[in-house]
Amino acid sequence: MYLKKNEAALTPPMGWNSWDCYAAGINEQQLLANAKLVAEKLKPHGWQYVVCDIQWSEPYAGTEPGVEYRKFAPLTMDKWGRLVPAPNRFPSSKDGVGFRAIADQIHDMGLKFGIHIMRGIPRQAVHAHTPIFGTDRTADQAALPASVCNWNGDMYGLDPKEKGAQEYYDSIFQLYAEWGVDFVKVDDICSEHMYDPAIYGEGEVSMIRKAIDRCGRQMVLSLSPGPALIEKAWHLEMNANMWRLTDDFWDNWTQLCRMFERCEVWESHVKPGCWPDCDMLPLGRIGTGFGKGRDSGFSKEEQRTLMTLWGIFRSPLMMGGDLEKLDAWTESLLTNDKVLGVNQNGSEPWQLERDEKHAVWMSKAPGEELFLALFNLSDEAASVAYDVSQLKETYGRTFAEAEDLWGDRKASFDPEKQMISVSLKAHDAGLYRLF
Amino acid sequence: MYLKKNEAALTPPMGWNSWDCYAAGINEQQLLANAKLVAEKLKPHGWQYVVCDIQWSEPYAGTEPGVEYRKFAPLTMDKWGRLVPAPNRFPSSKDGVGFRAIADQIHDMGLKFGIHIMRGIPRQAVHAHTPIFGTDRTADQAALPASVCNWNGDMYGLDPKEKGAQEYYDSIFQLYAEWGVDFVKVDDICSEHMYDPAIYGEGEVSMIRKAIDRCGRQMVLSLSPGPALIEKAWHLEMNANMWRLTDDFWDNWTQLCRMFERCEVWESHVKPGCWPDCDMLPLGRIGTGFGKGRDSGFSKEEQRTLMTLWGIFRSPLMMGGDLEKLDAWTESLLTNDKVLGVNQNGSEPWQLERDEKHAVWMSKAPGEELFLALFNLSDEAASVAYDVSQLKETYGRTFAEAEDLWGDRKASFDPEKQMISVSLKAHDAGLYRLF
Amino acid sequence: MYLKKNEAALTPPMGWNSWDCYAAGINEQQLLANAKLVAEKLKPHGWQYVVCDIQWSEPYAGTEPGVEYRKFAPLTMDKWGRLVPAPNRFPSSKDGVGFRAIADQIHDMGLKFGIHIMRGIPRQAVHAHTPIFGTDRTADQAALPASVCNWNGDMYGLDPKEKGAQEYYDSIFQLYAEWGVDFVKVDDICSEHMYDPAIYGEGEVSMIRKAIDRCGRQMVLSLSPGPALIEKAWHLEMNANMWRLTDDFWDNWTQLCRMFERCEVWESHVKPGCWPDCDMLPLGRIGTGFGKGRDSGFSKEEQRTLMTLWGIFRSPLMMGGDLEKLDAWTESLLTNDKVLGVNQNGSEPWQLERDEKHAVWMSKAPGEELFLALFNLSDEAASVAYDVSQLKETYGRTFAEAEDLWGDRKASFDPEKQMISVSLKAHDAGLYRLF
Amino acid sequence: MYLKKNEAALTPPMGWNSWDCYAAGINEQQLLANAKLVAEKLKPHGWQYVVCDIQWSEPYAGTEPGVEYRKFAPLTMDKWGRLVPAPNRFPSSKDGVGFRAIADQIHDMGLKFGIHIMRGIPRQAVHAHTPIFGTDRTADQAALPASVCNWNGDMYGLDPKEKGAQEYYDSIFQLYAEWGVDFVKVDDICSEHMYDPAIYGEGEVSMIRKAIDRCGRQMVLSLSPGPALIEKAWHLEMNANMWRLTDDFWDNWTQLCRMFERCEVWESHVKPGCWPDCDMLPLGRIGTGFGKGRDSGFSKEEQRTLMTLWGIFRSPLMMGGDLEKLDAWTESLLTNDKVLGVNQNGSEPWQLERDEKHAVWMSKAPGEELFLALFNLSDEAASVAYDVSQLKETYGRTFAEAEDLWGDRKASFDPEKQMISVSLKAHDAGLYRLF
Repeated sequence: MYLKKNEAALTPPMGWNSWDCYAAGINEQQLLANAKLVAEKLKPHGWQYVVCDIQWSEPYAGTEPGVEYRKFAPLTMDKWGRLVPAPNRFPSSKDGVGFRAIADQIHDMGLKFGIHIMRGIPRQAVHAHTPIFGTDRTADQAALPASVCNWNGDMYGLDPKEKGAQEYYDSIFQLYAEWGVDFVKVDDICSEHMYDPAIYGEGEVSMIRKAIDRCGRQMVLSLSPGPALIEKAWHLEMNANMWRLTDDFWDNWTQLCRMFERCEVWESHVKPGCWPDCDMLPLGRIGTGFGKGRDSGFSKEEQRTLMTLWGIFRSPLMMGGDLEKLDAWTESLLTNDKVLGVNQNGSEPWQLERDEKHAVWMSKAPGEELFLALFNLSDEAASVAYDVSQLKETYGRTFAEAEDLWGDRKASFDPEKQMISVSLKAHDAGLYRLF
Repeated sequence: MYLKKNEAALTPPMGWNSWDCYAAGINEQQLLANAKLVAEKLKPHGWQYVVCDIQWSEPYAGTEPGVEYRKFAPLTMDKWGRLVPAPNRFPSSKDGVGFRAIADQIHDMGLKFGIHIMRGIPRQAVHAHTPIFGTDRTADQAALPASVCNWNGDMYGLDPKEKGAQEYYDSIFQLYAEWGVDFVKVDDICSEHMYDPAIYGEGEVSMIRKAIDRCGRQMVLSLSPGPALIEKAWHLEMNANMWRLTDDFWDNWTQLCRMFERCEVWESHVKPGCWPDCDMLPLGRIGTGFGKGRDSGFSKEEQRTLMTLWGIFRSPLMMGGDLEKLDAWTESLLTNDKVLGVNQNGSEPWQLERDEKHAVWMSKAPGEELFLALFNLSDEAASVAYDVSQLKETYGRTFAEAEDLWGDRKASFDPEKQMISVSLKAHDAGLYRLF
Repeated sequence: MYLKKNEAALTPPMGWNSWDCYAAGINEQQLLANAKLVAEKLKPHGWQYVVCDIQWSEPYAGTEPGVEYRKFAPLTMDKWGRLVPAPNRFPSSKDGVGFRAIADQIHDMGLKFGIHIMRGIPRQAVHAHTPIFGTDRTADQAALPASVCNWNGDMYGLDPKEKGAQEYYDSIFQLYAEWGVDFVKVDDICSEHMYDPAIYGEGEVSMIRKAIDRCGRQMVLSLSPGPALIEKAWHLEMNANMWRLTDDFWDNWTQLCRMFERCEVWESHVKPGCWPDCDMLPLGRIGTGFGKGRDSGFSKEEQRTLMTLWGIFRSPLMMGGDLEKLDAWTESLLTNDKVLGVNQNGSEPWQLERDEKHAVWMSKAPGEELFLALFNLSDEAASVAYDVSQLKETYGRTFAEAEDLWGDRKASFDPEKQMISVSLKAHDAGLYRLF
Repeated sequence: MYLKKNEAALTPPMGWNSWDCYAAGINEQQLLANAKLVAEKLKPHGWQYVVCDIQWSEPYAGTEPGVEYRKFAPLTMDKWGRLVPAPNRFPSSKDGVGFRAIADQIHDMGLKFGIHIMRGIPRQAVHAHTPIFGTDRTADQAALPASVCNWNGDMYGLDPKEKGAQEYYDSIFQLYAEWGVDFVKVDDICSEHMYDPAIYGEGEVSMIRKAIDRCGRQMVLSLSPGPALIEKAWHLEMNANMWRLTDDFWDNWTQLCRMFERCEVWESHVKPGCWPDCDMLPLGRIGTGFGKGRDSGFSKEEQRTLMTLWGIFRSPLMMGGDLEKLDAWTESLLTNDKVLGVNQNGSEPWQLERDEKHAVWMSKAPGEELFLALFNLSDEAASVAYDVSQLKETYGRTFAEAEDLWGDRKASFDPEKQMISVSLKAHDAGLYRLF
């Protein structure tokens, strides 16, 4: 079904996001420094978005070690209850400029600019009875008193049945359009408990969709955090461009292994404009803003597995590590054009096999070719094989060769038997083009 | 195990509560009018408490038809963030008197006085950074941002780990002690979702217990609404005197039938000072304050079943109907001393049988006698019988006679076979003393 | 993704099934009588399958009133543990003929023949250690002792890890191919609890798929009962042609209303070869074999709603009522070619709106036209409208007219505003082609 | 409430059980060898029962490594469908003697004899239509086809609504009474899924209770495995003497830690005749029959914690290790009369405090003294303290001294402040008598 909103993201969005490294404390200098590195090093390989994550309107976010969200902290807000960047952290935002100046710079680099927001309306606006732009309503009238986020106390949800709710969303997206925002990551809106009748997150997704459609600027709509409910796939597909499959993803094997379960569930919902989202890439230098600065805890094999799964499943790719500390290995992962090409050019990702020890995925490659990924999920080195002849029915053809897309995981392919196999270290993966 | 808090309620509390009739809008005149009728008509039969239910600090509660809780309505509060009665509704409360004058009048009638509170600290105090009495802390510092009630937006929960939380509870119970409060019904604190780590209702129960123990006045602690978790029986028994078995109970047979399931689960937790609570008695004239004024929807048989179950199970008995409109039938239910005596003097209530069509309960009567209740749960008239010889082992004796405690449900009792049976209309019950 | 198994059902299967009328007791004469009526009255409108439902190997099924499944009843079985028709009920099956003679007759009518089976292997074969055809294994070796059906005690599940399990399925599907079976409804295999590790229904689906692929005859694979798990959509799509969305569907409004919730969840999984199944049509004369013979309890409006939803959603259509007692009204429902054409020729069914009172569905009609269904779910007459201009983006066109496909539910369509609306009785529906 | 069945176990049963060491393969020689060691070493300290666990009627149980339950293995059964010991494993059972000879020997040692049974009736009896003793019914008529155990395929559950079900239980308990059985551990009857309507384990518990009451011999009734449902405490208390709080308990700290959660839930249900059961003691030499022979994986500190918790909570104490390989350390645990005395002589066990790092339990000691247990649940050495003055209200007294019951965990007790504290290694516990 053709939907105009899909045009905002015809391929899986690729970019950089501040969270994994800077947590709630990113500032203008850091943001722009990373943007420059995206432009310089990653843009040639298709990376495009620079996204400023949570708490940019909280002046002292990130100043208490280990505290991302200071309880009831005053936020920087305009007279219509709209959050704006804290000027001590984003100096160019002063005097009503907001994110406009930063967006301009990022656009000048040939990149696109994204921001994070929490669903809803600031609690401080509600308790101050702040007026809503373009209406005779005040924030308290549109807010839902029990629709609160479990981990961040800034906002109340908006009540779709109340006049003023849609108008508030309209007012903020109008502002974001003025700023030049290209991508919005909306938070506290996509997990299971959003469908609680006291919260009604589904209604907020619909209001946000409408506000974007009305704002006059194309924006990618990304919903966080998961797990998104598969029962609501239809609603997500109608309204958003990306939605998270899990809660926050970090650098441990257990989470990576469980992502295979989620990709299995969501495979038939991956299509242009609709990108079930495996979350950011916790690669390179991460954790700094959390007081837990470290190099990614994934082994090199696990990093390949991560890039291979995100690649073949066509997840959005959002680098989370600090680009100012980008090492050569991590850079090589992010700039392998053949692997990235699977993500950008495949179609109809499909899990062929999975058990506790291995998985096999395919997607259609252009020209009736085939992308095939072989994963060793076990804790020991193992050979992983797949009988490609099972796909003869699907492809109406056989394959003559298998190109190793990572470049150093050469598989043995027997064109007669149509059997491919490769020896893989524990937690490693191979990715191939069959033609 | 002896606990001093049990002394506040050595028998199941009996009284009147404003909710079922007046909803959130009870006022001083109505409260005292009902109190006088408790004193006049019910006190001779053991009724004692007069409880002012929810929203007494909200000046305009009850003024919008069908709205019990006006969203973000300003509450009457002292400078320490403690809610006090709204003076337009409770004129005697002006000038810092609070509920003192009303309590005095009720005490002068020979009765005891109770109030309702929501757990937590007012949101308006939190967002105004109101100081907490006797501390250098402010309300926002002690509050939990995500610990909110689903159906009433007035309060934030308190964080037991934060200094100021216990002190706030101490400050309000000190005030209640000054007023002369004998009974506190704490709301939004007893249902399953209270054990969510973002809410931590268990910690609030413990703080409230401590605050009562410190306030210098004995008070019954009643927790609402249910369903209380049976897994937490141990914690409830250590801290409270009453806790609700279900969500709000109203005048329909389905709810009454389901109460049998809950009583079954909780029977071994009924003991002096610990009263699993079947909720108020929606009898007589109710619903007025909800804009749904009506006579109780229960048939007369169902009303007997209700009083019989509450009686033998030893539930607290809190009359919910308007005593100014008390009809003779309802009064007869509330003044049957033999039936009330089962509630007050029985011990170890015990379900002997239950299926979809009938139930049999017993409790120990003083002097090794036996209270026995027979229920016809089916939708048709039926005979309900019980073979009392099964209890011979338990009592070490047999019984010679069965006294009909309701007075018009005479059972046939065969002393030889120790068999009791009675013909009951649909949904009716009989209650007997065997001796 | 092209899968050969999809070719067995490129459009939603249409046919007749014995269950709703004959329960577990259908016999040869009844089956053939209904087949003749399918051929005569329904075949010209696209109906094709005649399916013999459960217990055809149990000689005395249907002889005890109200008992569909007689506990541990001996079944008619060949020496390889394969169930065959009970000859007292299906006389032509004697002497090893099985269903061959019946299938031949049905094929001669220009129809296709289907049978019901329970997943697994007969318990009586297991406890008799019956050999499995073509192996040196016995039934007990391949069976899973705890993989039993909750409502029918005939079978044990098969253990995919045991040699003999796949071979047993191969042996029965080879027999069915010999008989000339075109459609197999496998039971106790599709609901949530099938994914319990002690049951492993997923493995049985895979084995059955493989057995069909090997048997040399194309067969539609239909899985029962639901609710199928949406998380397992990927596995169902790879292996089956139909799978049930709910437990058994009968003639009451509550179930029909809930079907809208299930269709919402499954809409993006409807495609050629893959037909999420709303279950049989309990229309006309039903319930006879259950001792509850009756005309369908649905009002005429509800019957239209049923046919409209099954139609636009592209559910398989399996008539459940007794065709020997087919009344003119029911026949008119089953022979409305325009409505059936929506089911057979639409694509990409899509729910546009739904709340407690109404629903709007669309699917793509051939030639960039549009099928649109308007439902009044409320208990009162109401006007249901839809602003078709919302679809302009999707279709790149507007529409000039709306044809009423039922023929007597004419809608008002305003081509300028692209607004369609119709007055509908309670529980009624309209179905339109916009062009 | 006095119930005669409680007299079978007025104190927590203490004994030895074959499972933890011998799995399903125990034989007569091993059983008697262990019995002799119970008599010799443990009986002087109160140990009394010798229990032969599962599969004693299966001739080849224990012969396939790693397989406890051979699928559909033929069992030794009498002509009434009653299982009897396999004579190759229990030679004295031949010629209809059953367990009589073994019971006699154990009785002669001054001990009591227990056996394990699965609930229900053998599947082999059902499929052979074996008659039920004293009735005109056959096994298939009384069995429930879907009431099967997930992990052992021997039995069908019995249907309380069918004639023959109670009679079957009567027939087996009559046999056990003839054998001289004093203790019956019934399996597959106590966990959550027993309340599934297709299984109806509750009805089986009631039938077993009745069968014991009728058999003429006092027997302890022990139900397995857990987790028992706390909602069903009332039914367990009316019918059984012991019921399991968890699934099988083995020698790892995670399970031991989680037992504290279960004891908390069940504390108010511990009373004479009713013993919530923490399961057997996997101490000393265990696992042999599972092909995983080992010394208990618990550290010495954890073993103390285990004995202290089981002790103060008043769990039944059933030694699981091989007494022929009993080491001095383990023997010292099982023969510390002061610690065992807490288990046998305490009353009203009560958790006073628990968080992730520590726990404090008490029970009433005879003569208004106090038993107190302090647990260090953290992974590091820590001091654990308790302010005993909090119990002044409960006891009406203070304490002068604290006796260290383990003998080498001396606590510091300050009689003025009533504060007790002790330094404990990781996972260690102290146990005290205050007087």
